[in-house]
Amino acid sequence: MYDNCDWTGDDMIKYLVNLEYDGSEFNGYATQPNRNTIQDNIEMVLSKIFQSEIKTFGSSRTDARVHARDQYLTFEVEKNIEPRGLLRALNAQTKPAINIKNVEIVNSDFNPRYHVKSKVYHYQIMTKYNPFLRRYAYYHPYKLNIDKMREATKFICGTHDFTSFCNVKSEVEDKIRTIYELTINETDELITIEIEGNGFLYNMVRIIAGVLIDVGTEKIEPKQVSEMLLAKNRTVASKTMPPEGLFLIKINY
Amino acid sequence: MYDNCDWTGDDMIKYLVNLEYDGSEFNGYATQPNRNTIQDNIEMVLSKIFQSEIKTFGSSRTDARVHARDQYLTFEVEKNIEPRGLLRALNAQTKPAINIKNVEIVNSDFNPRYHVKSKVYHYQIMTKYNPFLRRYAYYHPYKLNIDKMREATKFICGTHDFTSFCNVKSEVEDKIRTIYELTINETDELITIEIEGNGFLYNMVRIIAGVLIDVGTEKIEPKQVSEMLLAKNRTVASKTMPPEGLFLIKINY
Repeated sequence: MYDNCDWTGDDMIKYLVNLEYDGSEFNGYATQPNRNTIQDNIEMVLSKIFQSEIKTFGSSRTDARVHARDQYLTFEVEKNIEPRGLLRALNAQTKPAINIKNVEIVNSDFNPRYHVKSKVYHYQIMTKYNPFLRRYAYYHPYKLNIDKMREATKFICGTHDFTSFCNVKSEVEDKIRTIYELTINETDELITIEIEGNGFLYNMVRIIAGVLIDVGTEKIEPKQVSEMLLAKNRTVASKTMPPEGLFLIKINY
Repeated sequence: MYDNCDWTGDDMIKYLVNLEYDGSEFNGYATQPNRNTIQDNIEMVLSKIFQSEIKTFGSSRTDARVHARDQYLTFEVEKNIEPRGLLRALNAQTKPAINIKNVEIVNSDFNPRYHVKSKVYHYQIMTKYNPFLRRYAYYHPYKLNIDKMREATKFICGTHDFTSFCNVKSEVEDKIRTIYELTINETDELITIEIEGNGFLYNMVRIIAGVLIDVGTEKIEPKQVSEMLLAKNRTVASKTMPPEGLFLIKINY
């Protein structure tokens, strides 16, 4: 039923899929042996639809319980299925926590990882417990000094070596990244840290959230953030905050 | 540690507890043999805190997967625990999906069910799928005619015999209730039916949601809602909508 006769012989067709997911009940985005991941669920469904084993390439890895409002993946296959029909088939068969927003055919040289211009993440904090947000925000039951947190953001913006704000398990050699924007928004319900950069190291947003929370509780002074970065040493920086507050919000190509 | 010496001998102390809960993972509010209910979880924790078996009386029953932003229960016990300490102990030990908002001591004649003046419910509908709202809204993937739905609300407001809008399993004899207000609010994400009345029959809000959705899809005309009510027969009215869209929002005493 999906085979609409546009066989292209040996030519492979590259699909770009835009999706969002509630990461609460997954062991992260990227495939793992015998694990419940978003990539595994999508590849299982795609393999059924195309009746051949499909391997996908995601734009960003997200950890267990981290969410995405905007994520991309590509895959190549010989069979041509009309994108709108493929979108419907995917949404019908992937888990309800995954929503496929768009499917399109792209040029074979499009790379969902290398062609990223910037990414935006949110880290959500609730200072008053709300059971409806427990999977979507970190609960910090003490007042935070937002002015001091805002003051600290200026030391993080710009181009820096982010070794101090990167999980030591990371195997990436070049730890220089550029943060274009870092803001803190406050509503009655949530404090949201919004960060846009050209790339992010392993756990970098969750460590920055930890640093800003330490500033907000006045455990450290805003200007100490600059010293943390200069030390290029993970042990001088704050704890990695829990995953549930983290959202991959936007990927710009 | 909770025994602050204010023993009152044979006098019982009546506590009023105000709470909210995400009902997604419960088999409803009211206790059931060997079931995972909100009442069971709270009674188990209270019994540990007071070291005696505590039986509670809730203001409203909510079905499996139905949520509450405002719910009340009372219980009586001989031991006097300072309300703020009891609130903290309850929040530390009940499931994360339950949030205790307030604890106070009330007069022994206060009845959390009979003293209710009105209740407000919301029924949330999403017409565009959002995986983050899948536990909190009913997904209706077709356009709804909001003007017609609003027109139909005027036939439901006021005092009526709501037999047609009540689950046939209900054992309540008097099916006359008064709806004070019924509005439909629309945002980009959600259509919310808000209903306030002096009391609600079993499944009444979910059946009213079904009736209004049938009007919105133009399956029935607004004025047919009046005929449905006059028939006093459940079979003439629409389906009971799924529980996840339903929130008990406010109980007024």
